[in-house]
Amino acid sequence: MFQPEMSQNIANMSGQVIRDILKLTQQPDVISFAGGMPPTDALPHEALREISGLAFEKYGREVLQYGTSEGFLPLREFIVKWMAKKGVKAELEEVIVTSGSQQGIDLMAKAFLNQDDRVIMEKPTYLTAIQIFQLYGASFLFGDSDENGIVPSSLQQISKHSTNKLLYLVPNFQNPTGVTLSQDRRKELPGMMAELKLVLVEDDPYGDLVYDDNHNGPIKAHDQDQRVVYLGSFSKIISPGLRVGFAVAPEAIIEKLVIGKQSSDVHTCNLAQAMIYEFCAGGLLEPHLESLKNQYRKKRDLMLEVMDRHFPRSVSWNKPGGGLFIWVQLPAGKTAQGLLKEAVKEKVAFITGECFYVGGGGSNTLRLNFSNASSAQIEEGISRLGKVMHTYLA
Amino acid sequence: MFQPEMSQNIANMSGQVIRDILKLTQQPDVISFAGGMPPTDALPHEALREISGLAFEKYGREVLQYGTSEGFLPLREFIVKWMAKKGVKAELEEVIVTSGSQQGIDLMAKAFLNQDDRVIMEKPTYLTAIQIFQLYGASFLFGDSDENGIVPSSLQQISKHSTNKLLYLVPNFQNPTGVTLSQDRRKELPGMMAELKLVLVEDDPYGDLVYDDNHNGPIKAHDQDQRVVYLGSFSKIISPGLRVGFAVAPEAIIEKLVIGKQSSDVHTCNLAQAMIYEFCAGGLLEPHLESLKNQYRKKRDLMLEVMDRHFPRSVSWNKPGGGLFIWVQLPAGKTAQGLLKEAVKEKVAFITGECFYVGGGGSNTLRLNFSNASSAQIEEGISRLGKVMHTYLA
Repeated sequence: MFQPEMSQNIANMSGQVIRDILKLTQQPDVISFAGGMPPTDALPHEALREISGLAFEKYGREVLQYGTSEGFLPLREFIVKWMAKKGVKAELEEVIVTSGSQQGIDLMAKAFLNQDDRVIMEKPTYLTAIQIFQLYGASFLFGDSDENGIVPSSLQQISKHSTNKLLYLVPNFQNPTGVTLSQDRRKELPGMMAELKLVLVEDDPYGDLVYDDNHNGPIKAHDQDQRVVYLGSFSKIISPGLRVGFAVAPEAIIEKLVIGKQSSDVHTCNLAQAMIYEFCAGGLLEPHLESLKNQYRKKRDLMLEVMDRHFPRSVSWNKPGGGLFIWVQLPAGKTAQGLLKEAVKEKVAFITGECFYVGGGGSNTLRLNFSNASSAQIEEGISRLGKVMHTYLA
Repeated sequence: MFQPEMSQNIANMSGQVIRDILKLTQQPDVISFAGGMPPTDALPHEALREISGLAFEKYGREVLQYGTSEGFLPLREFIVKWMAKKGVKAELEEVIVTSGSQQGIDLMAKAFLNQDDRVIMEKPTYLTAIQIFQLYGASFLFGDSDENGIVPSSLQQISKHSTNKLLYLVPNFQNPTGVTLSQDRRKELPGMMAELKLVLVEDDPYGDLVYDDNHNGPIKAHDQDQRVVYLGSFSKIISPGLRVGFAVAPEAIIEKLVIGKQSSDVHTCNLAQAMIYEFCAGGLLEPHLESLKNQYRKKRDLMLEVMDRHFPRSVSWNKPGGGLFIWVQLPAGKTAQGLLKEAVKEKVAFITGECFYVGGGGSNTLRLNFSNASSAQIEEGISRLGKVMHTYLA
């Protein structure tokens, strides 16, 4: 067969990891802790069904016609108010609706990166963000991280290059580690960006899924130098299938994100935008979020408790204050890849931590999702995994 | 204000042309022939409103959950059948749903182009395709075109470079010229691609909007060497606001388009995909398309007739057999830019042809859209434009 000559940035990517995970999770008898999905029965199906009719009534043919690349005006206005509640003052001109917050990362890459430019990240960090930046030819530099997130002073140690462009962070309940950036670091980081000639990409899909008290506002709230771009998402709090997220950025950056978006998909599905707006403006978001948080808190607590009962003493993990993931460390010398092979035989799946490391590392780590599985599946799946661990680590 | 250092490919793009056009068309008293939109009252509003409810009933929470990057399975299966009717045999694995066919161009650029790679195009060609390729650092080479589309032998004249990657064509009712590629060239082009080391991107948003008899099947129907990627769209035949299109490509290329899509927006809005599928599978597409074609044929004929009555003899234009646009030539030495300035004073707008030329040219050309304006607006607007022409060209 003809093998076309692909771009150098995509040529060696196979997407195989993600496809393998999907294959696993699609087998009905496998209990999967691999994905990052809401449980399907927690999706506000009835409310959104009604709202889809309402959106047609209220916005008539507007939802079916071309819209602007900036997004559906009422939704952008809602986002301004929503961000104000989080402590971020944004003008309408500083908001663009995206097709999921993932498109926000893609548009930032498109706006900022030349081939071989550098992105500064945490290690480990969000798998697909790594892939997005690689597709634009980025190479990576890493700050140090501890239990309070990235260490600001470590950014000063990174050798200065004019090709250093973006600092990418998931400050709340980081994917995959679950770590949250401390409040003092949120205040400190924006002021460092000008000297480092960086723009900070604050990717915040999990910021509203808070289960304990200690929550901090966005880094963007401290962005006096206009060097922070906030990416938000309705995927984790309403519906991932509708693909609606947003970016809040200085106007000079929004202008370029709009050009990128005109060229990527013209605009986000108008019906989806109108539905998300009606859900939020109709007062359904807050109670739905409370309900989600209660469900997810219980599942997190259950998973932690079952892990405590069944996992070997040599295995350690964190207790995340929110988000969707628990981060697990096997004893040094044991690999999560090896564990996964055995686990799959027992019909239980997770994602190995090394996927989240650029250039190797983390082979003894793994990520467990607690939002998607039912309580019964959590009990059964974690118990199975514990058994596999006892054998594998013996 | 802080001016961030943008990527070299986006730095000089302002998006100003498109924004200026939008500003014009948004003034309610301006008759605009600038855009490429369906008239809002031709959108199948009632049918799609019902179908949105039906999609929720039938596909339950699936429409709200994450889907696969390849797209909603029933829609992909429909696309296979739809393409078979057009003479293209495609397997399911050769189909990906995109967020509008524009995303198909973007994903092809992402999959194939390194900085400074070349795309071969017609001159003039689709404005936003030029912009998409430029955002991936492409430079351009041009084949010759005549009234039957691109001239295959002219491609042999182009100097061979390993960096020549894509041949981009809009074979049906080209935007902006309205020209259609002849049947013999459709058969000839695919066989030339291997020697030229090109992949042919067949962008076909207008192929179903045929008003006269002479219609040819897709170039992709003659793709024995697996070197043609077909991009289709539901924007012009159902609804642009839902943002659903598709690509049909050899599996080795689809694999890379899927990786690009995973990184761009994960997948296209599931509700929109399910609605497009239900509209098509429910037998609504064919009658709706017939109705659209009847409306647009009448509008085309009306516009041509009114142009004939009101435009000066020194102005010439084509009679497109389909699509949305009439291409107009002013006498040499007169500019469409100059005409537009005068036309706007008389509250009538169009798009100047030079926007569709890379590196200059076409200053005496302009594009008129006949789908969006009402018959009364066509009569009034073309009459006004004729008056402005008589003065401007005098």
